[in-house]
Parts: sequence; structure tokens; C-alpha cells
Amino acid sequence: MRKYRLVADQLLEEITHGKYKNELRLPTEEDLIVAYSVSKSTLRNAIDVLVDKSILYRVQGSGIYIRKPIYPDTITINSIKGFKEEFKNKKIHSKVIKLEQVEADAEISFKLQCEIGTPVYFVNRIRYVENEPFSIEYSYFNKNIIPYLGKEIAEKSIYNYIENDLNLSIGFADKYISVEKLSKIDSDHLQLNESDPSMVTEETVFLSNGKVFNHSKVIHNYKYAKFFALAKNR
Amino acid sequence: MRKYRLVADQLLEEITHGKYKNELRLPTEEDLIVAYSVSKSTLRNAIDVLVDKSILYRVQGSGIYIRKPIYPDTITINSIKGFKEEFKNKKIHSKVIKLEQVEADAEISFKLQCEIGTPVYFVNRIRYVENEPFSIEYSYFNKNIIPYLGKEIAEKSIYNYIENDLNLSIGFADKYISVEKLSKIDSDHLQLNESDPSMVTEETVFLSNGKVFNHSKVIHNYKYAKFFALAKNR
Repeated sequence: MRKYRLVADQLLEEITHGKYKNELRLPTEEDLIVAYSVSKSTLRNAIDVLVDKSILYRVQGSGIYIRKPIYPDTITINSIKGFKEEFKNKKIHSKVIKLEQVEADAEISFKLQCEIGTPVYFVNRIRYVENEPFSIEYSYFNKNIIPYLGKEIAEKSIYNYIENDLNLSIGFADKYISVEKLSKIDSDHLQLNESDPSMVTEETVFLSNGKVFNHSKVIHNYKYAKFFALAKNR
Repeated sequence: MRKYRLVADQLLEEITHGKYKNELRLPTEEDLIVAYSVSKSTLRNAIDVLVDKSILYRVQGSGIYIRKPIYPDTITINSIKGFKEEFKNKKIHSKVIKLEQVEADAEISFKLQCEIGTPVYFVNRIRYVENEPFSIEYSYFNKNIIPYLGKEIAEKSIYNYIENDLNLSIGFADKYISVEKLSKIDSDHLQLNESDPSMVTEETVFLSNGKVFNHSKVIHNYKYAKFFALAKNR
């Protein structure tokens, strides 16, 4: 890996772990060059990487700043973390309603970018935060990529299992966000009324090698689901 | 500007304008090196920039691919374009309900990151796509940054005015996405029923120099508002 990317990773790691949490401005370029023992151009390239990732921004004549959401308890839509990661300091659990192996029909094969007839796992779960139903998940996993998925795994974190036990690298996701009225069955699960609003995300999730392993439709309780997104002018 | 970033910009420009639209895979590294007359490391750095921006992804042993939303008519939440830009091929217009100059109270000053009492423009607009009401916008603009805003501007594109007439560079935005039930007045504007769902975005918009010039709350017609977001594992 090129040096400036290693520096970018290190800087990101430190930002994430709160090294600069009391100030939104980073030390000066000169100080960072000394702190990381790198050349000016390596440091600037590393900062560029984090500016592109919308983690930092430069203010001419003033310095380099960290971007932070100002509202707490929002889920950052531009990162994929497991549910457990998102709600690190909260009590969370999942209830598996259905887990079965099926064959991909035309729609599922389109969404998972696989052939019709491919074996896939279907998982339907309710996810709770502090014992309140937060979302209902309808997920498909390509069995050619995820060879085994059991209830005991789905009750915990499927993403942890994929990364830690199957040793696969989850890369990126395309997400579609829309609003629907709740169906009777989903409103019962979420303890809301039929036709109440819901925030719906459809997520196509890729391994780092570009293969789609998962497609999920997630129905969120509209009272709790708040998303944060970073946008750039380009 | 460093060379690899110029190459990244050129490549992005060509992707955006459909140079590779019939294939999602880019030419090989070797071919790109020749096409852009650059060294291998400059090309790789340029590709890295677009991978970080979630525009490209690499598949080991296969090549470099372009990421594209698979559903049409979605608004990409990670980019700031004016309304006119988003709906380039559609008939759009805006109706200004209110435009007035006020002083920032505690809430507005927090959201615009300015002092209480700062003069701000408040604009309330309904925005139409193909004559259907698409969204209602409640916007505040810091008058110290946007010295003049009139009805004739708000009826067209405020962003175009800011970039082309005021010559300011719009940089990035933080967006918060949530779901609410419609108020009576917004439901009338959107020709929906009171308590129907709505997709709500709250946007804090920064100039490239890091100054907040605009905060908007936008109430979208849930039947039409579909957003697309790119996510990465990090």
C-alpha cells in the first residue's frame, strides 16, 4: 500500500477513536508532518484522501477541520457497519421470524446479480434497540458466497459472522431510501398502526472483490430512524 | 493541483458524460496509461481518488468497474446539485410562498453557525416536477454571505445565482433524513392528506471555504422522493 494511504488510514483511525474529539480543527500541516514523520506531499495526499471521503475539509487560510454530525443518534448512511456497531452503547437484540433456503427468482437474481435458480438464504428478522422494535429486515444472501447461515447466527450479527468466521471482506453498498405506508404485518411487528409511515432502505451489499453477497429491504420505525448523509458538490 | 488529481477529474468528467456508458468496466490499466499519457503510479493514484469517491471499484483479477444506481429516477443524496440539475430532462418550476429578511434566533443561529441576530433570508418555496408538487422548502440563508436574495431569483435556481452571479463556490453539505407525518398546511401544498407520510431532509450547506451559508428543511412528497446513497465499509 502506498505510504500516503497508510498515513490516511492512521489519521482516520485516530480521528475515529476520538484523538481530536475536543477540537474540530486538526493540528497545523507543519505539526502533522512532524507527528507522522512524513514529507509535505505525503501528508497532503493523505489529507486529500480524507477530504475525498468527506471526513475532513480544508478552510483556506485557517486549517483542516473534521466534519461531524451535529445531531446525535443518527445512523450514517454512507458507512456500512453492522447493527451492533451502530448501536454500540445500547442494548440490542434480534428475533428471527423466518430463515430458509430458496432459489433466486427473476427479481432476487436481478438484485443479487446472480443467475436465476441460484441457492439463496432468505432471512426475516425484527431488530430491537433497548427492547423497542427498530426495524424489520427482509434479506437475501447468495449461498454460493455465504455457504452456511443458521438461526443462531441470524440472532446475533450476520456481518460479524461473515467477516470474522467466513473471513470475507465486506466492501461497499448501494442504498435506496424511500418512504412507504406500513403493511398490516409490519405495523404489528413494529407496534405501530397500519398505514403509519415507514422509512425503507433497500441495500445491495458488495464484498471488496465486487461480488454482491446480500440484498436487504429494511422497514424502519419512523419514530426512531434518523439518517445522516455527507454530500459534496461535484 | 497534483497531476493524479487532474487525471482523476478528467476521468470523472468522461464517466459523467457517458464515455463508458455502454460498459461498466473501464479499459485496462495498461490502456488507460497510454490513453492519458501518465505513469502507472499517477494512474493508480487517480483511480484511488475515484474509488474513495465511490465512483469506481476494483475487482481483483478482473478490472476497474463503474458504480451505477440500478434504479432510475433516484436522487443521489451524496451530491449537491441544484433542483434544476437533478431533474435536467423534466419540466420543473417553483412557487415562492414567502421570502423575507429576519434575524437569526437561537435555533437558526445554531443551524447556520452564526451569531444570534445575524440578518438572514427566509424562503418558503413549493417545487414542482412536471407540474406535480414534489417538495416544500423552508430555507435560511446568511445575509452576510448572500447579500441579496429576491423573489425573481427564488423562483428560479438560488444555487445557480450563488455560483454564477455571486461567484461563490458551494462545497459540501450535511444532510439528515427522517420521516414525519404531514402537517395540514404541507399536506395541502403537496395535495396529499394530513398525516400522510413525508420524507424530510434537513440540510446544512457549506461554501468550499467551510462557511455555512444555508440551512434548509425540505418536506418531500413520499410518492416521488427516492434517494440513492453510496456506502463504504470503514
